[in-house]
Amino acid sequence: MTDLAAALAASAEKVNARLDALLAPVDGDEGRVIEAMRYGTLQGGKRLRPFLVLQAAGLFGVPEARALDVGCALEMIHSYSLVHDDLPAMDDDDLRRGQPTCHRKFDEATAILAGDGLQARAFEVLAGDTVHPNPLVRCQLVAALAEAAGAPGMVGGQMVDLMAEHRDPATIDIPHITRLQQLKTGRLFEYACVAGAILGEAPEADRQAMIAYARDMGLAFQIADDLLDVEGDEATVGKGVGKDAAAGKATFVSLLGIEEARREADRLAEQAVGQLAAYDARADLLRAVARYMVTRQS
Amino acid sequence: MTDLAAALAASAEKVNARLDALLAPVDGDEGRVIEAMRYGTLQGGKRLRPFLVLQAAGLFGVPEARALDVGCALEMIHSYSLVHDDLPAMDDDDLRRGQPTCHRKFDEATAILAGDGLQARAFEVLAGDTVHPNPLVRCQLVAALAEAAGAPGMVGGQMVDLMAEHRDPATIDIPHITRLQQLKTGRLFEYACVAGAILGEAPEADRQAMIAYARDMGLAFQIADDLLDVEGDEATVGKGVGKDAAAGKATFVSLLGIEEARREADRLAEQAVGQLAAYDARADLLRAVARYMVTRQS
Repeated sequence: MTDLAAALAASAEKVNARLDALLAPVDGDEGRVIEAMRYGTLQGGKRLRPFLVLQAAGLFGVPEARALDVGCALEMIHSYSLVHDDLPAMDDDDLRRGQPTCHRKFDEATAILAGDGLQARAFEVLAGDTVHPNPLVRCQLVAALAEAAGAPGMVGGQMVDLMAEHRDPATIDIPHITRLQQLKTGRLFEYACVAGAILGEAPEADRQAMIAYARDMGLAFQIADDLLDVEGDEATVGKGVGKDAAAGKATFVSLLGIEEARREADRLAEQAVGQLAAYDARADLLRAVARYMVTRQS
Repeated sequence: MTDLAAALAASAEKVNARLDALLAPVDGDEGRVIEAMRYGTLQGGKRLRPFLVLQAAGLFGVPEARALDVGCALEMIHSYSLVHDDLPAMDDDDLRRGQPTCHRKFDEATAILAGDGLQARAFEVLAGDTVHPNPLVRCQLVAALAEAAGAPGMVGGQMVDLMAEHRDPATIDIPHITRLQQLKTGRLFEYACVAGAILGEAPEADRQAMIAYARDMGLAFQIADDLLDVEGDEATVGKGVGKDAAAGKATFVSLLGIEEARREADRLAEQAVGQLAAYDARADLLRAVARYMVTRQS
């Protein structure tokens, strides 16, 4: 096991325990929506986004418990987006990480409500005083996450993605796909990293460095995801592969070809590492994450 | 026009103008989700919840612009819940206020995203410094709204409502329906009123008085809603009537009968007025709201 794999596993364990506590079961008929929220959140996953929050926070001397709660709030947002994405009206997926998707396990109405409840819970956690004693910091964390998750970010990116079906294929070029991914998946990665700097009340230059790192790393992540869809093995990847091509969907790989896509991902990973030049060895796991993005098999 | 009707209309005009500004259209493919968010929010409605925020805030000397932004954030939450409620997997409604519902005007995927985007935007607005110069007040407003809108509140109530289909009808009694409504619709009314006290940094006793008023008033509102579904005229009410009975749904009216339900609504309205005993004439419009609840025709 590499240092990164060990650190990721150790962090995921803490994240899972904290998510379990933040999403405590309740009695009564409303217990079912909590159960679905737990199902949508606690079925595993690499917990990459909370790991990034913890690592970035570590650069700025932030106590781990604070970063952990921010990471859990972010993971709730990520999880709600997957629950809604899997719905029949969206991607219509039956499986997620080898298990029935939330609406298959429960039902569509419960899955819609579970996603809605997870989003609300994320902001409730962020506004609470376990996250930071300075309420201005908590407000900044709430506002930044709301922007990253909402129409100016993830939700906007999902809309751009849906609209691609109605676009002249000739207009779906690299700049278009890049912007789509920066909104749809990139903005939450940026949030993960900048949240560490916000928690540390770090100067603007640090916030910009974290965002620049996350932008390059997130795009490398996405290109690697497209490569896995073409080249990956379904059992290893843990979800269906070949879906983009089957759907006739334009991706970095369909537009650039496999070789060029791989070169671009490598280039972006090194560029991400370069954004961390001002930081010492405490940024080594962030450097490793960027490089891992382009070598991962799942 | 009564004083209340005039005040409601004047307030709705300000709310609509501010919502229009807070949900500014954007270019690009993601513009479609903003368009759907605007459609789900700006198609009219009484703007009762923002009115309550403004009136409650007025008791505690809060500048109107601050209360207006909190009222708009709350209205975005209310609007997102209607957009998601109308979806085929939920209530499957084609019309809302005489217009096609969001998923009929756009499509299901866009309506899901529009609801998600509205929820995020509400918290973004609340965390911003137009709402209050003291960030602790903003954090309190975010945390309280997240709780009222999420699984411990509205979302939980929607779940309890969905579960009623699977319940032994004999267990759906007045305490069950009361709790269901306190979660599903009551918690946002409570938030509307307590937000005024939070904005005014008022003592705990005032916060409790606002919640007690809202609890009685909200329940009166709900019983009146059930009565309108039985007795109302579709054109006046502005939505389908007789739906509860057609669906075999237990309501205050089906359990208590029309006469008893009306008496209970009247009793609650007067009880709500009683909760305002400590306040002077500045609370007269809140008193009028409670009484209007049980006389309204739409």
